[in-house]
Amino acid sequence: MHFFSDNATPVCPAVMAAIAAADRADHGYDGDGWSARLDGAFSDLFETPVRALWLATGTAANSIALATLCPPYGGVICHEEAHILIDECGAPGFFTHGATLMPLPGDGAKLTPDSVTARLRMIRPDVHQSPARAISITNATEYGRAYTPAEVAALGDIAKGHGLGFHMDGARFANAVAHLGCTPADITWRAGVDALSFGCVKNGGMVGEALLFFGDAAPARAADAARWRKRSGHLFSKGRYLAAQILAMIEGDLWLRNAHAANGAAQALAASVAERLLHPVEANELFVRLTADEAARLRAQGFDFYDWGDGAARLVTNWSQDAQSVAPLAQALKALDHG
Amino acid sequence: MHFFSDNATPVCPAVMAAIAAADRADHGYDGDGWSARLDGAFSDLFETPVRALWLATGTAANSIALATLCPPYGGVICHEEAHILIDECGAPGFFTHGATLMPLPGDGAKLTPDSVTARLRMIRPDVHQSPARAISITNATEYGRAYTPAEVAALGDIAKGHGLGFHMDGARFANAVAHLGCTPADITWRAGVDALSFGCVKNGGMVGEALLFFGDAAPARAADAARWRKRSGHLFSKGRYLAAQILAMIEGDLWLRNAHAANGAAQALAASVAERLLHPVEANELFVRLTADEAARLRAQGFDFYDWGDGAARLVTNWSQDAQSVAPLAQALKALDHG
Amino acid sequence: MHFFSDNATPVCPAVMAAIAAADRADHGYDGDGWSARLDGAFSDLFETPVRALWLATGTAANSIALATLCPPYGGVICHEEAHILIDECGAPGFFTHGATLMPLPGDGAKLTPDSVTARLRMIRPDVHQSPARAISITNATEYGRAYTPAEVAALGDIAKGHGLGFHMDGARFANAVAHLGCTPADITWRAGVDALSFGCVKNGGMVGEALLFFGDAAPARAADAARWRKRSGHLFSKGRYLAAQILAMIEGDLWLRNAHAANGAAQALAASVAERLLHPVEANELFVRLTADEAARLRAQGFDFYDWGDGAARLVTNWSQDAQSVAPLAQALKALDHG
Amino acid sequence: MHFFSDNATPVCPAVMAAIAAADRADHGYDGDGWSARLDGAFSDLFETPVRALWLATGTAANSIALATLCPPYGGVICHEEAHILIDECGAPGFFTHGATLMPLPGDGAKLTPDSVTARLRMIRPDVHQSPARAISITNATEYGRAYTPAEVAALGDIAKGHGLGFHMDGARFANAVAHLGCTPADITWRAGVDALSFGCVKNGGMVGEALLFFGDAAPARAADAARWRKRSGHLFSKGRYLAAQILAMIEGDLWLRNAHAANGAAQALAASVAERLLHPVEANELFVRLTADEAARLRAQGFDFYDWGDGAARLVTNWSQDAQSVAPLAQALKALDHG
Repeated sequence: MHFFSDNATPVCPAVMAAIAAADRADHGYDGDGWSARLDGAFSDLFETPVRALWLATGTAANSIALATLCPPYGGVICHEEAHILIDECGAPGFFTHGATLMPLPGDGAKLTPDSVTARLRMIRPDVHQSPARAISITNATEYGRAYTPAEVAALGDIAKGHGLGFHMDGARFANAVAHLGCTPADITWRAGVDALSFGCVKNGGMVGEALLFFGDAAPARAADAARWRKRSGHLFSKGRYLAAQILAMIEGDLWLRNAHAANGAAQALAASVAERLLHPVEANELFVRLTADEAARLRAQGFDFYDWGDGAARLVTNWSQDAQSVAPLAQALKALDHG
Repeated sequence: MHFFSDNATPVCPAVMAAIAAADRADHGYDGDGWSARLDGAFSDLFETPVRALWLATGTAANSIALATLCPPYGGVICHEEAHILIDECGAPGFFTHGATLMPLPGDGAKLTPDSVTARLRMIRPDVHQSPARAISITNATEYGRAYTPAEVAALGDIAKGHGLGFHMDGARFANAVAHLGCTPADITWRAGVDALSFGCVKNGGMVGEALLFFGDAAPARAADAARWRKRSGHLFSKGRYLAAQILAMIEGDLWLRNAHAANGAAQALAASVAERLLHPVEANELFVRLTADEAARLRAQGFDFYDWGDGAARLVTNWSQDAQSVAPLAQALKALDHG
Repeated sequence: MHFFSDNATPVCPAVMAAIAAADRADHGYDGDGWSARLDGAFSDLFETPVRALWLATGTAANSIALATLCPPYGGVICHEEAHILIDECGAPGFFTHGATLMPLPGDGAKLTPDSVTARLRMIRPDVHQSPARAISITNATEYGRAYTPAEVAALGDIAKGHGLGFHMDGARFANAVAHLGCTPADITWRAGVDALSFGCVKNGGMVGEALLFFGDAAPARAADAARWRKRSGHLFSKGRYLAAQILAMIEGDLWLRNAHAANGAAQALAASVAERLLHPVEANELFVRLTADEAARLRAQGFDFYDWGDGAARLVTNWSQDAQSVAPLAQALKALDHG
Repeated sequence: MHFFSDNATPVCPAVMAAIAAADRADHGYDGDGWSARLDGAFSDLFETPVRALWLATGTAANSIALATLCPPYGGVICHEEAHILIDECGAPGFFTHGATLMPLPGDGAKLTPDSVTARLRMIRPDVHQSPARAISITNATEYGRAYTPAEVAALGDIAKGHGLGFHMDGARFANAVAHLGCTPADITWRAGVDALSFGCVKNGGMVGEALLFFGDAAPARAADAARWRKRSGHLFSKGRYLAAQILAMIEGDLWLRNAHAANGAAQALAASVAERLLHPVEANELFVRLTADEAARLRAQGFDFYDWGDGAARLVTNWSQDAQSVAPLAQALKALDHG
């Protein structure tokens, strides 16, 4: 049973069905009927006018978002363990033409208003120092924590006050919303977010994430993003197959149901290893203390996962699981301590 | 009936079946079993060791190929109507970090040894002028012409003699091979080509082209390309779905059968409008003289296609057609002159 | 006697004196008293509010100007023999992050309204094609021709009508103004020019050109340019030595006197080789038919110059010459035909 | 009396004389006689074959050095207060096309072998993470500390062992050498350094730093650097005036005498404020505890300097001073405590 990544899972049947249903001739690129429905579908979901573009990957969505928010000479404040900094091989630097990521520490891979404000105060307003021009957070974070609406809004206020763009990497946005029980609007535009990378692939899609823009600047930023999409080789010839997947995810709340399933599985596992947890479990990731010997024992029973440095491991649950289906692992984890 | 682009067609059933067959858990990115088979499958097809990467689009494949062949201060010799120059919104400039495309005229969108040699002679070998570092050709060309093995080799000799990389944009490579009746090797590495963008999507795929490297430098270039792929957001989380499509295309010669079908359809149409042809028909595109009035008459009968400036039109056939299925358009075209 | 370039000349005594006069302690970068006077001095000269930055070279001034006018995915219409395209090793591509130069032919290295309009019409307004965003001309041109105020204004009208920025490479701006007898304003902002690279080095300076912005957008563009200047390593530690040179050139009309001297020398030479001229002589460059044998004879008499392809040569006069001082060459040229 | 920066000083008379001596016609760019002597002069000084290029600024020299050592997808390990990270408005990101600076903490703005090794161990060798490709240190550091030959060599060994390029920002290289009493070779190529930004302007020059390459790769890197120099607008039309300054600095050991003078002045000041020093004084910078009130008192006496955060100040001495000439400030500093 795979717990090393939500990337490992197959495609959700409803998404596969949507792909099959899109398998007819239509205009190329984003000139098709499915792509044309994206703005509307996301506007409904977020209760505000939204501009939406499909993109292949979260890396592309994040990087293009930042390219619309930050000039080449500017800086983007982010967490020191942010995916954009650590795991994208410099993609933000590529798309922004060299903007500087400005890393900050913080528990649970979260930025705090204090750390951001202190960082901003360090920058002299002359041409020698890169000015901060955007803040980027990940929700749920790289440690599976969810920023609450109030936490997002506090950062949004700082962004607004300093004229910074505000981006959210939502590779696991659904898991955050499912945990928080809020509306998608509550942790995005209502809290000051300008651009959201809305993840689909980890949540049951095959290929295709959505990049969303909110607010008055949305049309201009989306037009820019459309240029970056083409220019970076991301304008698919048959984009309808991506748009169809994304619509299947959001038009019937599949995205939320899938996230609830994955989160539920994570909670079931968390309950079985409460004392080993390195971070509270709020989404679909668990970080647990685990010796090499214990890890070997679990793997011998057929459970796959990543080591997380020495003496720890990361377990990721996914849309295809639930509390019941992960019971064997929960059992095995419990057995480590009480077996 | 659509003749405006081979992008408009649905996915070939065999490719769709391959996607379904790949719908199981496996490692993410390109760590899966399908991706692992690409090098071998292409090495068999090209009768030489090949390094192959899946990519989302031809634009990405072309641009990453050029980024491995040409430094930022260098130049790429190409035709003045090359897709890389005209229809990719500057993607090669993005991926190469500003390399200069050096356009040349030429019949049928073909470069000739004479024009390339003359262009090379114009460049002073000092730091003020960008040195040419690569040649890029499209086969079949933007006007549906096929470079023969001898024509490619003549350019390959120049490339080798001047230390230039040699790239082929093969968005319609299959159509060229089908027309020429040669082996894939004959118009690529045997003729000096270093990197090939091997098109699949226009030929029946959903998403996924292949970028191939030949020769001694292939491993180093492929390793570089893998970095560019990640860095440009093209390393899909679930790459197995792309790899599976590409394998389905090449492992059973589907790519060639599909191209023969499209080419056959084009020949059937060509026969019906021989006197109106602006270019010999060798692949799956026809460029025909057509007045606005004639175009309107055809569209009224349900035939879609692009205008090609004033008084001309482009008709593109595809894998799902053949001589028989396009007979209605052939009839309608004939009727323009003799109706 | 050197006629191969106006770069070869020593520094004009008045400029050298200004450097010596600036040799005192002051704030670094552009925080000094000389730099602070640039805006005012150029505003006086151009009879309108101007924002001015010193830069090291014409290449830097041109490239930074274009970076403020054109996004990475855009295009810059220029002549096919423009310095920015041919002789800057891709610098505009570097500073604009890959924008596309869109070359056009034209007599005397001049763009015409017809050619520009025709080029603009060729661009489809979709994301596949790079949109033109700027026009760049050189005045005096690469063939020593001067665009008249009316010619500039005709292009300025097109720029304005299409929302394009308008840049003038004025490496030999002084020579153009000296020839035309107009005001600097007449061939710049009054004719629609947004940004001017104002050359000093060829005209008697040591190091330091000025980049000027006109119009309502000038403050924002100059602020951007100041960022590019720092970011490209062009913000000199002791900028006062550059500012002092530029001020010395313009505050007493030295720039115009020097240009008149160089132009006068060119006219004297032109009169001696009227039948050999490939282009009318309007600034300080002559392009003359000259066999290899004739060239050798001149060089044997101590005259240096560049060959200009087969059977032609380029002669450049400079600020340190005048009609009288170049009489020996005039004599030698005349002797070729009548000797 | 200015102590805010060594940029504020006038030009050293010997350098000014060299400029005057270069004021004759010669070939443009770097085709002149002075530029031709640079390689030889630096090879003599460093006792090994050196390739040397003049450049306008330290920012340009640093950035071009890094561009030759690190690919766009790579990373450069540096101190978290390094000039390249903090004070160049992202120039390294511009020249390297987006490479990632990897900051580390460390006393006195120094990297240590332990911190570098630990950082390298954190990087997974897959395409998701940027690989480190270079180490960059500043000597003397941003806090006026000098890396000893042994300290540099320890880092050089790590660089060599991991296949990393090794760059030294030597804006105040002369001050470090003067302090250490070693040869220039000892803290550069003998300790594994591949590229050195050799500062001149702070040490008495007007405009012009030197970028030096050592070792077998020097010719290829210098050729690359020459392309970057042109492409970034740094190839001056009249480069002889820069080359002449640099030659004047190094051919008679002026660089070392000037540094000794500045260092001597710094030591004299250090002796007067020993208990207030935040860092040992080894070069020409002092960082001292100073209340706002004390700072005001000093400024009232005519001493200029920068505040360094709250409660501290930075004092910089320069080539035009010595222990005697700064006695008034030494006196004033002493009087703060004992006055």
